[in-house]
Amino acid sequence: MSSTYGENLKLSIFGQSHGPAIGMTLDGIPAGLPVDLDRLQEFLNRRAPGQNDWSTPRKEEDRPEFLAGLVDGYTCGAPIAAVIHNKNTRSGDYANLKDCPRPGHADYTAQIKYGGFQDAAGGGHFSGRLTAPLCIAGGLCKQWLEEMGIRIGAQIACIGSVNDDFMDYVNPELERLNPEFPVFNNYCAKEMKSVIAYARENHDSVGGIIRCAVTGLPAGLGEPMFGGVENRISQIVFGIPAVKAIEFGDIGPIGAVCGSDVNDNYVIENGKISTQTNHCGGILGGITNGMPVIFEVTIKPTPSISRPQQSVSLSKMETTTLEIKGRHDPCIVPRAVPVIEAAAAIAIYDLILGNTQTDRRK
Amino acid sequence: MSSTYGENLKLSIFGQSHGPAIGMTLDGIPAGLPVDLDRLQEFLNRRAPGQNDWSTPRKEEDRPEFLAGLVDGYTCGAPIAAVIHNKNTRSGDYANLKDCPRPGHADYTAQIKYGGFQDAAGGGHFSGRLTAPLCIAGGLCKQWLEEMGIRIGAQIACIGSVNDDFMDYVNPELERLNPEFPVFNNYCAKEMKSVIAYARENHDSVGGIIRCAVTGLPAGLGEPMFGGVENRISQIVFGIPAVKAIEFGDIGPIGAVCGSDVNDNYVIENGKISTQTNHCGGILGGITNGMPVIFEVTIKPTPSISRPQQSVSLSKMETTTLEIKGRHDPCIVPRAVPVIEAAAAIAIYDLILGNTQTDRRK
Amino acid sequence: MSSTYGENLKLSIFGQSHGPAIGMTLDGIPAGLPVDLDRLQEFLNRRAPGQNDWSTPRKEEDRPEFLAGLVDGYTCGAPIAAVIHNKNTRSGDYANLKDCPRPGHADYTAQIKYGGFQDAAGGGHFSGRLTAPLCIAGGLCKQWLEEMGIRIGAQIACIGSVNDDFMDYVNPELERLNPEFPVFNNYCAKEMKSVIAYARENHDSVGGIIRCAVTGLPAGLGEPMFGGVENRISQIVFGIPAVKAIEFGDIGPIGAVCGSDVNDNYVIENGKISTQTNHCGGILGGITNGMPVIFEVTIKPTPSISRPQQSVSLSKMETTTLEIKGRHDPCIVPRAVPVIEAAAAIAIYDLILGNTQTDRRK
Amino acid sequence: MSSTYGENLKLSIFGQSHGPAIGMTLDGIPAGLPVDLDRLQEFLNRRAPGQNDWSTPRKEEDRPEFLAGLVDGYTCGAPIAAVIHNKNTRSGDYANLKDCPRPGHADYTAQIKYGGFQDAAGGGHFSGRLTAPLCIAGGLCKQWLEEMGIRIGAQIACIGSVNDDFMDYVNPELERLNPEFPVFNNYCAKEMKSVIAYARENHDSVGGIIRCAVTGLPAGLGEPMFGGVENRISQIVFGIPAVKAIEFGDIGPIGAVCGSDVNDNYVIENGKISTQTNHCGGILGGITNGMPVIFEVTIKPTPSISRPQQSVSLSKMETTTLEIKGRHDPCIVPRAVPVIEAAAAIAIYDLILGNTQTDRRK
Repeated sequence: MSSTYGENLKLSIFGQSHGPAIGMTLDGIPAGLPVDLDRLQEFLNRRAPGQNDWSTPRKEEDRPEFLAGLVDGYTCGAPIAAVIHNKNTRSGDYANLKDCPRPGHADYTAQIKYGGFQDAAGGGHFSGRLTAPLCIAGGLCKQWLEEMGIRIGAQIACIGSVNDDFMDYVNPELERLNPEFPVFNNYCAKEMKSVIAYARENHDSVGGIIRCAVTGLPAGLGEPMFGGVENRISQIVFGIPAVKAIEFGDIGPIGAVCGSDVNDNYVIENGKISTQTNHCGGILGGITNGMPVIFEVTIKPTPSISRPQQSVSLSKMETTTLEIKGRHDPCIVPRAVPVIEAAAAIAIYDLILGNTQTDRRK
Repeated sequence: MSSTYGENLKLSIFGQSHGPAIGMTLDGIPAGLPVDLDRLQEFLNRRAPGQNDWSTPRKEEDRPEFLAGLVDGYTCGAPIAAVIHNKNTRSGDYANLKDCPRPGHADYTAQIKYGGFQDAAGGGHFSGRLTAPLCIAGGLCKQWLEEMGIRIGAQIACIGSVNDDFMDYVNPELERLNPEFPVFNNYCAKEMKSVIAYARENHDSVGGIIRCAVTGLPAGLGEPMFGGVENRISQIVFGIPAVKAIEFGDIGPIGAVCGSDVNDNYVIENGKISTQTNHCGGILGGITNGMPVIFEVTIKPTPSISRPQQSVSLSKMETTTLEIKGRHDPCIVPRAVPVIEAAAAIAIYDLILGNTQTDRRK
Repeated sequence: MSSTYGENLKLSIFGQSHGPAIGMTLDGIPAGLPVDLDRLQEFLNRRAPGQNDWSTPRKEEDRPEFLAGLVDGYTCGAPIAAVIHNKNTRSGDYANLKDCPRPGHADYTAQIKYGGFQDAAGGGHFSGRLTAPLCIAGGLCKQWLEEMGIRIGAQIACIGSVNDDFMDYVNPELERLNPEFPVFNNYCAKEMKSVIAYARENHDSVGGIIRCAVTGLPAGLGEPMFGGVENRISQIVFGIPAVKAIEFGDIGPIGAVCGSDVNDNYVIENGKISTQTNHCGGILGGITNGMPVIFEVTIKPTPSISRPQQSVSLSKMETTTLEIKGRHDPCIVPRAVPVIEAAAAIAIYDLILGNTQTDRRK
Repeated sequence: MSSTYGENLKLSIFGQSHGPAIGMTLDGIPAGLPVDLDRLQEFLNRRAPGQNDWSTPRKEEDRPEFLAGLVDGYTCGAPIAAVIHNKNTRSGDYANLKDCPRPGHADYTAQIKYGGFQDAAGGGHFSGRLTAPLCIAGGLCKQWLEEMGIRIGAQIACIGSVNDDFMDYVNPELERLNPEFPVFNNYCAKEMKSVIAYARENHDSVGGIIRCAVTGLPAGLGEPMFGGVENRISQIVFGIPAVKAIEFGDIGPIGAVCGSDVNDNYVIENGKISTQTNHCGGILGGITNGMPVIFEVTIKPTPSISRPQQSVSLSKMETTTLEIKGRHDPCIVPRAVPVIEAAAAIAIYDLILGNTQTDRRK
């Protein structure tokens, strides 16, 4: 189902880039969970546009208004609903998108699917702006997971050809990551920003890879086959615009490894079972083994580039040259980091809510 | 939900590697669709074990018995049910798996999740054997898609460090692939088989990449956000044992490309809109654009290797050395090809059944 | 799942009686459907409080604000979202409900389920006020069904001991029903209003029965077993507060009939197959037969009565006498009529969206 | 979705009346639950045909074969699968049903829906025979509920015009019911059997009402709105052939009661909160209040009667007289009792598996 996610919680996301508001409802959340709105706002600010050099100049405060589900700072068991009113809309910028679809965007596929009735302004419901309500839901789940000792953090693994230091898959040291531009090696941050600036100057864009880790998970979470941790995370992560690939654990380059290289041997440490390495990314048979869950997501270069591109006029059925106006990010990767964290938080919290298997046996 | 998949069709898979039978039910299929059981058997034979040098010597005919849903060679609208009775079981081989989990397998996570009640023999419900019922469902969907002009085929893109020729993403030429060992370059097939043989001799295993293409799809299939083609395919594909990564389209290596490189320009050919290139893999905003849908799946080296590995005894809580008996594939990639095709067929057919959006408008 | 409904469309309802706003999201609706907001408002007015003698004096305009999903009077394919801001809230009236639960209400069960974190004011999420967003969704579905020639209307079959004339199950004559107080026999309306007035004077309340008909349905709608028309309608109808029973067709009183009395004989009229009678209520095996779908819903007497009742103090764990303040309907039946129609419209429209079975075969 | 039920467990039922086998898969069940196959067989025998005077002479042993999910008498966490092979099939009896639909059966609606491809023999997938796999699943759930102190039992409340003694809604005394023909007043059993015998002699049939009680439930089970106990039970119960109505609690006859009559006052007994009466049937706001959950189900007279009835020939499009051959029950009510219990058990166990709300808070 389109804009709805979850087996145990039910997240529903709505809104269009230049419509009156965007928002979400989140059903199935237990009562009595504390909500820290200030920390949520900090989290949302990491994604909000117009904060710095490498993001679109469109300025939106992204300040959610909660309409339901919270009482005196706690969840009340009823569905949570929150909206963000769009302010800085300039839909005139997109007047001709319905006739002349942007390469790499959903303009053409939306036109075919919705027969011209879609809200084309700014990509409508396909806009990256819709990741803001995803971050509301994810920011809440992240807080509740932290209460259980489960932390989620993500690294900018690469932008263009600049690679950050590799993450330690056994001990990810998430606390070393600066939320504003999360890399392990600060020199890389500088290089990455140069790459972005260069792309902007060239009226072009670059992509990258985000590596996300979830620590503190109990073993035994997830279901076999289609309900595994990989299945659930990938189902939500591909809902984020520009994501084209996901990889769990660290088994590659596949040509260079044998089974004896990537099987993680079991060890006993302090009376507890763990594995020496974590090539499997904390997941075996779809189920957590107690090691950090780690995955990488590939973000394609932003399709909105300001140099002329070849498109077609749907009304005239002839090729035409398109120059995209509007305000765009030359690289979406830094702003996508909290979105990936949000998606992971929602997927993991959903799994935890459904973890009746182990509960019942006790 | 664990072993159930689908929004519009409902696939439910059951069975354990060494239990009485494995099977599947498939609900929500329209009445009146023809079923060619001979072609289905041919498809299943591609996955069946014991057929050739590079697979496990366990011999199973994998001949499904249909219990429901078919009448006189057509679907009757009622749920389809089929079982395969297990014959060549040797569960004694797995006697100590409950105490001493195999690295890279689900033995330990199953033990934690199911508290020792799991069927450990041969991996139980986590066994690759459960991909046989997936292939029953997928083989049926594949036939029905072919009736609509939609073809699904997959290539062994690499095994170990041997890479087949790249696929043409605009025109995949699936008919050139030999189902028995599907590569474009037959010299590569020979090399790949050597790599597998070498791994077997070394009591080790190798992984690889499978590249799957779906051609003949209409534009406009799929839903925004969490119901996109990528979301649906990845949700089912990660249900296949040993899959660790999935990538849609061809945008990498990410460090080498800019937006202007990977945006697919629109062109008009024979009065129809298409794209010059197909970097996006036929999907924009989660929705098909009419170009082939293409994705790559990374299969890890088979975790079952016969050389000694370090594990732990759960009862004694001490490290121990494990030597795996039983019959195993040194490389699962060739047998996984039809499984990936089956998963893609199920996902695509499910999307087509739900494609009311465009239907209603007319 | 709690406040979410639908197999093909996904309705999500949120809000609490005295929270900032109530609302709904409706996902999965095709693009290009016209929306007449004036007619929707007329429909909502039928349910709105404070309109007449027999409803609560709480005045709420129930004017929905659409945040998403509509463009220029048509659905755009993206999820529809609408909110109604609560204005006339007086949550002080409900200060002691958390300690002293009202008999017949959800106060006690909410207290147990949510551990005291629930929003108790006015029943919170359990309030009849939440039927307003249900009517937004249902009012829209009703419009779209009417475009297909499918009409939904409901009759007040009885209030207290006053019974309206029976509906003709073969030809329900819905056009004879006055939306403001829909009965076939106007004399009954007068009597029913007297019964309500009498209950109010006695600080008591009365219940009744609503009979709802859906005409113009094609044969072949619905699924066997758990996806039948009865299953789907009952699943949503029991989401309406105070509903305690549902009956499809007209086979009772069960003691007075044999199979030969209630089997509907087939006839051919104008070259079309129909049935002479309609005891089955238009449904056989869960699937429509082309006759009107008709069902009755029993609404219990409003539990809010202003006479003293016995309750308990949860803090002191002792019995106590409760006098309910606040503003209440002595009979909810008249205002529940559009709510039942809305629920039926949502269920039927959901079934139609999923009716791929017949579509595909052609 | 058609033949699939459940939010937390996933039940899938398959088979046709005269196909090779009928069966079910049940996914999402925790590992480590004991299964007593002898008690299950006793439960299935209550439903099995050919056991006594008032049921069809078709003899089927209804002995399930478990293919998956059980190991050494315990659930193993993998999906449970069981089949019953059909033996006593006589599909020749139904040769002309495709052309000449039986009044009151699904023959015509199946013909329209499936376009003639349906399995018409014996009603195919619509047959009451499909309640056997429902009883496998329900019989298992019943055992697991009993381990938690939750008991489910049902009474034949009436057959034709013979009414058994009323059930005590506060203390249902289920242990007084004889499973073979469960009434409180044995004199009524005799009368009821006479009514059935009389209907058979008249080549006719009779219906009745089954009253089902669930005792030992904790308070706080169920969800608001569409996930309430009433919604879930009614959704599965209407999947049983011949069910036309369901009523929760005891508030009728609606014309005779006021709010002050049916509100259940709270009392404190032995330091625990309960209600003096149980008009609400143990459910308020969709959530259990700790009192017995009680509901009534109306079963229509069996539509298969052996006297001539008017039908139509679909091929000739003319009216015709139909005489039904085959073997039928003149009253399905006694055999439907365990089926209603099974449905209730599945719905309740599903709710318990999903009861994370209260679990999490602790």
